Amino acid sequence: MPSKTAIASIPLATVRYCGLMAEFSFHIHKTDGRARTGEIRMARGTIRTPAFMPVGTAATVKAMKPDDVRAAGADIILGNTYHLMLRPGAERMARLGGLHRFMNWPHPILTDSGGYQVMSLGALVKMREEGVSFQSHVDGAKHFVSPERSIEIQRLLGSDIVMAFDECTPFPATRERAESSMRLSMRWAKRSRDEFLKSDQGALFGIQQGSMFPDLRQESADKLQEIGFEGYAIGGLAVGEGQQAMFEVLDYAPGMLPAEKPRYLMGVGKPSDIIGAVMRGIDMFDCVLPTRSGRTAQAFTLGGTLNLRNARHAEDSGPLDAGCPCPVCASYSRAYLHHLFKAGEMLGAMLLTEHNIWHYQDLMRGLRDAISKGKVEAFARDRLSRYSAAAE
Amino acid sequence: MPSKTAIASIPLATVRYCGLMAEFSFHIHKTDGRARTGEIRMARGTIRTPAFMPVGTAATVKAMKPDDVRAAGADIILGNTYHLMLRPGAERMARLGGLHRFMNWPHPILTDSGGYQVMSLGALVKMREEGVSFQSHVDGAKHFVSPERSIEIQRLLGSDIVMAFDECTPFPATRERAESSMRLSMRWAKRSRDEFLKSDQGALFGIQQGSMFPDLRQESADKLQEIGFEGYAIGGLAVGEGQQAMFEVLDYAPGMLPAEKPRYLMGVGKPSDIIGAVMRGIDMFDCVLPTRSGRTAQAFTLGGTLNLRNARHAEDSGPLDAGCPCPVCASYSRAYLHHLFKAGEMLGAMLLTEHNIWHYQDLMRGLRDAISKGKVEAFARDRLSRYSAAAE
Repeated sequence: MPSKTAIASIPLATVRYCGLMAEFSFHIHKTDGRARTGEIRMARGTIRTPAFMPVGTAATVKAMKPDDVRAAGADIILGNTYHLMLRPGAERMARLGGLHRFMNWPHPILTDSGGYQVMSLGALVKMREEGVSFQSHVDGAKHFVSPERSIEIQRLLGSDIVMAFDECTPFPATRERAESSMRLSMRWAKRSRDEFLKSDQGALFGIQQGSMFPDLRQESADKLQEIGFEGYAIGGLAVGEGQQAMFEVLDYAPGMLPAEKPRYLMGVGKPSDIIGAVMRGIDMFDCVLPTRSGRTAQAFTLGGTLNLRNARHAEDSGPLDAGCPCPVCASYSRAYLHHLFKAGEMLGAMLLTEHNIWHYQDLMRGLRDAISKGKVEAFARDRLSRYSAAAE
Repeated sequence: MPSKTAIASIPLATVRYCGLMAEFSFHIHKTDGRARTGEIRMARGTIRTPAFMPVGTAATVKAMKPDDVRAAGADIILGNTYHLMLRPGAERMARLGGLHRFMNWPHPILTDSGGYQVMSLGALVKMREEGVSFQSHVDGAKHFVSPERSIEIQRLLGSDIVMAFDECTPFPATRERAESSMRLSMRWAKRSRDEFLKSDQGALFGIQQGSMFPDLRQESADKLQEIGFEGYAIGGLAVGEGQQAMFEVLDYAPGMLPAEKPRYLMGVGKPSDIIGAVMRGIDMFDCVLPTRSGRTAQAFTLGGTLNLRNARHAEDSGPLDAGCPCPVCASYSRAYLHHLFKAGEMLGAMLLTEHNIWHYQDLMRGLRDAISKGKVEAFARDRLSRYSAAAE
């Protein structure tokens, strides 16, 4: 746990969070093969694992009210540091009482470090040992983010789980590129930890890099444990390598990280990705897929994915997914959802996002339950066979 | 009430509604000057009057879930026959069980006749004695709507309050144009009634026309009462004449209609329009203003209208409207709403639409309560002085 050192450098608005947020513990209740189920306990709430975190990029899980995100079963959401530092801005957010209050989500929030999106969304990006300078995609303003500034921003936002600042190594990468990128990320991880320890707000997760090279993944895992974190993320996956290549890394990478700490696979993924990753020892996930798909008429169901724009749904008075416990499936027909998307009505995106978030949370409930009962293999086999029904 | 004549021509899917929907009665509990408060009782629910009906154009009150529309206090919503006949189509809607089931709104629905929007939104519109032919703005398909077809469509949708098919006389109109337009509408009103009486579904309202000419308004009112309707609408207002000219008509037009039947002012309006119209004896309203404004960052508050995009809200941690009982004002700041609109987030439209609908329903609650207590003048004076605070 972070030490209780000087808080003199913390802006006034966040000081009141400090006592609240220093609590962090992970309890594994049951393992089944390499899969584990348990809970992370934090001051703002308990996170049941394996957990899926809906993405709330710009201080909103797009097209959903926070009460509905919670009702779907989400214990924690993710906020994007890059977007929030540009708009409304970290200092402004702190003056407004922090991200939780701003967006009316009193439960835990994990923030990414901003590194990935600075490098993929920023313009005129320049990376140096010190940090990264770039221009905002919002207004063209110049910004500089270092490990220290990333941690400061996340503290200003009021984050419960802070991520170390790193470079997400692009895929594919030569061994040389993967090595130098990983080593830079490890130096930044140390600087992130040093900055983080200046306050006692929440938890800090380190991020393993190393691309597709087992020895680099091992070196990264060793470096991170030497520094010491409350949890460990696996980075540099879900960047175009495909499920098979990802699973090959997940066959060994989680085992390099301490078993008693939460493991978080960043930016993953499709339901079948999540099932495969849970079977390989992952505890936490985030992905824009359920929310983004909800806005583009793509539905996740127990019978595979559906495109609600497809004309075959126009007179289908049945629910989107007969096996789904969500309020959307209880009250609306496929025909109605089809109509809303054809008519360009916002309610289409609202309802389908809600259903998709329920689908993901229901999958996590199913996985937790199956692991508890020692039946995760059978659960996974059943789910995967359903999902493999022809996608539209 | 409509007679129980042959139902042979009614499509199968709507037959089951018939017994359910023949109930309609209006009870005035209290009058205060010309203002009245009471309730309309129908099989699907009771409508407290004066009532504001949120507009659900394409089978959705835009950006709101129906449960939230209900929670705001709406007893009835309006559906647009023109939009629904084009998409998803009246016969398809009937096959899917009707509009209530389709959109998950089990409470009363009033449908307009389609006439106004055929003539304002259709292309290549041709009007004859028989009816109106036009091309769809959705797919260019040719359509024909007559009084008979309009009533049939509204029956297929499952409407609780059906509107007679009419021509909304454009403003300004010469006396000659206003007279011939009104007389056509009265012939169509008779044909609408004849068609309506072939089933016993719900209630049919006639629509008074006559533009700004008192003798034409009187002739129209007389014709409508000769035919006989469950309620009477005042049409041809809120078409650009301005509040003063509208109130001049409302000083006499409602008194030409039977006092014991509901009076509905179509397409109105701003809160101050509604207050002035209630004081002149109107019982029902509909308008897109609260929903449309909600999508364009315009807020109705007790301190006047606000534009949430205005930079002065960027660091305002206070609620949108301190006096508002709505869930949005209870949980979100002006700064957050400002952020959502600046970031182009759908949640901005969702929350502001909800607030605006609450504001309108709260105004109607206030009016009903004030009339009950014989204090509508004082209530109106107080509200109007607040609303006149500088708008943004």
